[in-house]
This record gives sequence, C-alpha cells and structure tokens, in this order.
Amino acid sequence: MSLITVGSVAFDAIETPFGKTDKIIGGAGTYIALSSSYFTKDQKIVSVVGEDFPEETLKDLQKRGVDVEGIQIKKGEKTFFWSGKYHNDMNSRDTLVTELNVLENFDPIVPASYQGADFLMLGNLAPSVQKTVIERMENRPKLIALDTMNFWMDIAWDDLVETLKLVDVLIINDEEARQMSKEYSLVKAAQKIMRMGPKYLIIKKGEHGALLFYKNSVFFAPALPLEEVFDPTGAGDTFAGGFIGYLARSGDISFDNMKSAVIAGSAMASFCVEKFGTERLMNLTQDEIYERIMEFVNLVNFEMEQVI
Amino acid sequence: MSLITVGSVAFDAIETPFGKTDKIIGGAGTYIALSSSYFTKDQKIVSVVGEDFPEETLKDLQKRGVDVEGIQIKKGEKTFFWSGKYHNDMNSRDTLVTELNVLENFDPIVPASYQGADFLMLGNLAPSVQKTVIERMENRPKLIALDTMNFWMDIAWDDLVETLKLVDVLIINDEEARQMSKEYSLVKAAQKIMRMGPKYLIIKKGEHGALLFYKNSVFFAPALPLEEVFDPTGAGDTFAGGFIGYLARSGDISFDNMKSAVIAGSAMASFCVEKFGTERLMNLTQDEIYERIMEFVNLVNFEMEQVI
Repeated sequence: MSLITVGSVAFDAIETPFGKTDKIIGGAGTYIALSSSYFTKDQKIVSVVGEDFPEETLKDLQKRGVDVEGIQIKKGEKTFFWSGKYHNDMNSRDTLVTELNVLENFDPIVPASYQGADFLMLGNLAPSVQKTVIERMENRPKLIALDTMNFWMDIAWDDLVETLKLVDVLIINDEEARQMSKEYSLVKAAQKIMRMGPKYLIIKKGEHGALLFYKNSVFFAPALPLEEVFDPTGAGDTFAGGFIGYLARSGDISFDNMKSAVIAGSAMASFCVEKFGTERLMNLTQDEIYERIMEFVNLVNFEMEQVI
Repeated sequence: MSLITVGSVAFDAIETPFGKTDKIIGGAGTYIALSSSYFTKDQKIVSVVGEDFPEETLKDLQKRGVDVEGIQIKKGEKTFFWSGKYHNDMNSRDTLVTELNVLENFDPIVPASYQGADFLMLGNLAPSVQKTVIERMENRPKLIALDTMNFWMDIAWDDLVETLKLVDVLIINDEEARQMSKEYSLVKAAQKIMRMGPKYLIIKKGEHGALLFYKNSVFFAPALPLEEVFDPTGAGDTFAGGFIGYLARSGDISFDNMKSAVIAGSAMASFCVEKFGTERLMNLTQDEIYERIMEFVNLVNFEMEQVI
C-alpha cells in the first residue's frame, strides 16, 4: 500500500569519538524513506531543500523507489543544516549548529498524485507543518504515525496537542515520553499520552530497545547488543521508516503485525548506527536484513518447558 | 537437585520516596533462598547471624523448605546491618550505614549433610569467603554461580580474579561489567569477562532487563514495565535466586534452559520490588508466579509472517 513520508531532507555534519564528517546527507525524511524503501516500493516523500542540494541525492532516492515530486527545491535558498557532536558514551550529544534555512517557512505541498495514500509518516518537524499535511490529504490515510521531539514540546506545545489528536501512532523516546506526560514511570506515561490522541504509542529507549503500547497491552522489542555504535544520527528515523514500511507493505495494522513492524524498525536502526550518516542504508541487501531480523528473533526467543 | 546458597542473612533499614522502614530482614542469602524456594525444595543455606537475629525468621526460612543448619549463630555478636536511601529515580542510592558485625570474620561452615549438592549459588560476599566455600565442597557441584559487586573489585581484585576461575556463571550488573572489563560496550565486556573464567555471564540492567552470554550467543530477557518500583532492595539477589532455583529444579544446565531460568529470575525480581524488603517474597502463590512469567512471555512474543 502507498506510503507518504514527510520530513526534512538536509545536510548534517557529525562528530563522534570515532571521527568527523564534512557536510553529508541527512534529515529525518531521508532516513525514513531510505529505511522504508526496503519494505515497500510504493512510496512518496514531502519535503523542501535549497538550491544547494545535490540532484544526485534526489536521484538516489528515486533509484530506491521513492517518488520525489513532493520535494520542493527553493531557488536562491539554502538547505536545512544541522551539526552535532556526540559524547563518549554516545547517549548524549551537543548541537553545534542549526540553520533552519528552507525549513523556516516550510509550506508542505502534497502533489495531486500523492492523494489517496494509505499510510502517512510524519517525521520530526514543527507540529503545525505536520498538521497542515494531514489537512491537505483529501481522504484520511488508513494509518497516520508521527514522530516529534522535546524541542516542540518546549516551543509549540499547543500545536503539538492539537496535532496529536489526529494521529494513530506516536513515536517518541523515553525522555520525551516523560516530558510529555510529566510521569517518570513509562507505563503511567503511556496511559496519559494515549489519552491525548494516539491509539498506539512507541517509546524508544535507544540501546535498551523499544516499547509498543496499545490499550492495556505492551510489547517489548530489544535493541541488538552491539560491539560498537559508530554514529547514532538518524537511528530513530530509520526505526520509524522500518516500522511504517513494514506495515505499509502488507497493509495489516493489527497489534500483532505492529509488533513485527517494531522488530523490523529495530533491525533497520541497528544497521544505521554502523556507519556515518545514511551510508549503511544505501546498499543493504534483502539477505542482510533477513539475517538481522533473525538475530532479533533469536535474541529474545525462549521456550519454557515447565513454567513453575 | 540440591542447591546450596551462600549469602548474608541480615538487617536492613530502607528509605525510598514511598516510605521508610525500621530494621527489617534483609541480606543476599535471604532473598536468594526465598526466591529459589518457589522452584526447589531441596535447598540449604550457609550464612552467619548474631545473637540478635530473630529465631522466627529462621523458622520462616525452614517453612519455605530451606535447611538452615549452615547458618551460624554467634553468641554475643550482632547481625550484619545495612541502611540505605534511594534517590527519586530509584536507580541510585546512598549507603547510610554498613555495620559488618558477624560478617567481619565470617568463616563459612559447610555442614556434612550439605555435601554432594549439585548447585552452588555464591551470593555477594568477600571473594575469599566465596572461594573458601568452593574449597570446602568435597565434590565440585555441577554448577557454581557467583554474584559480586564493584566494592570487591575495588578492595579485593586479586581474590576475585582467583575465585572467578572456579565458577561457571557470573551474575553482575552493567556498571560492574564495565568496571570489571574496562570496556563500555557490554558485548566486548562479556567477551573479556568470560575469558576470566565463567562460561556463562549474566549482565543485569535493572529496569532494562538482563543479558545472558554464552560463547558467541546472547539472550535478552526484558524487565517487566512496571507502574511503580516501590523498593529495589534485593531485586538482584531475588533474580539470582529465581535463576538458580529454576535450574536446580530440573538439573538441566543447557543454554536453552538457562534462558528460561533468566526469565524466571526476572519474574521473581519483578515481585520483589513491589513491597519493602522480603515482604512480597514471603507469600507468593504458584499461580501468581505462573501468571507473571506468562506476562514476560507475552511481552516479547511475536510471529513474523513475512520477514522481508
């Protein structure tokens, strides 16, 4: 089934304990679209870039089956740029530079050919922009998922609350869930947040895995214990891409299939962190992904002959 | 099969954001023995208490099937006492008081009737004491598991290294694994630590679950997402007790059965934190434990119809 991703297509400059990059390709929309492209080929993206953005990269996205008609190219303007430096434990980072550029007045265009999409993945952006895209869909998609961050809770809380009422799945991390709910316990946080709109809530815990909440049920997906995390940039977006791509492929949005989708997302994220930026996501094979997902299956699989 | 637990039987005074206790019953040996008692009735304990220790509690242990012949009662001496205060996030605590008392010169006695035990669980104690118990076993048990802490790495490193060479399973937390190996990555840490002796390594990550390493395999057991952690005291010991008790019941020490044992341990630990001290462990029913273990099964269980 068809999927629309909305998210930044951007430049990043990254510093980790393992090295440093110049301006490389980044952006939530890029990571999401690349990741989901391994599961579904019926995919479109809504974004905006400046004149300085390489046409080559748009072609790379097209090669992976992503329709880029919805990416506006702003003449005389510059692409969104973010630069950050990770601390030694890789769990925290400092933002060095944020240049909004074309994102400052982003008015998302949903091309006519995009109408009728079944799945809508709203990557991390201003909640008002995310809401505008929902409003510009002539028919409500079967499933709308949204990613956000603490930044928007700080500066655009009311917009975020309004937008949350319109979505089915919210994807945030543990810190964000605590900030959003003012609850330390993630179980309590989940119950509060689901009352704000989303029927499903995914709380990402980085190296500690992810929780999927639905009504009174909870599913836990582990993260793969890795020898090394090389660069965490985009891991959350890659997770979201794998998740929504897995769902969009079959169109099955049952809780059971969402569990599998969370595993697919976790597997994709585990690739993302192995190299700088989007590098690892450019040329994965189906076999590599199959084997990685099987590692997740084996990681948590157990049979209890006798319980007690 | 028969199990010997070695560990402190002690007094604790605990303060958490939810309340405060007077001197209550604690000690690693107590938690381990209570926890494992739900899985095996062929159980003995080696420990030491002072004259001030209530006979009532020893009887409670006996009622749960624990042979207490190996608990020395030192006339004119006082029982080990620990007091601590948990911070608001419950993940860290300050030790307020540590009175070693009878533990200061603990010379563990292994009664003749204990000889021939199949399983030996060495709770957190001075490594030299743990080693003495191993040496006092006339026949090497089928499986020896050991718990330790950063304190012993700081003050008794050489003893610990010698003792580790004699054990099959080491149970520590993530922080301790990092200190022991000087590696941040738990995968790298595990490989280093297993070269020091233990064939199996369990790394506990508190609310983030536990990892079981064996050769190049790894198994991940989640922690149950809880609304509230009331008192974490003894959770690690309770985990160890459930783990070793589960193994001792069937005697099956395959990697596959160890996975189930880690789940059993995690389930027992999830009960422990629901009330102060050992309270919740005193009167569990088989049904409660069965249902809790099933919650773990459901928490991580998924079927992928189509992988990729």
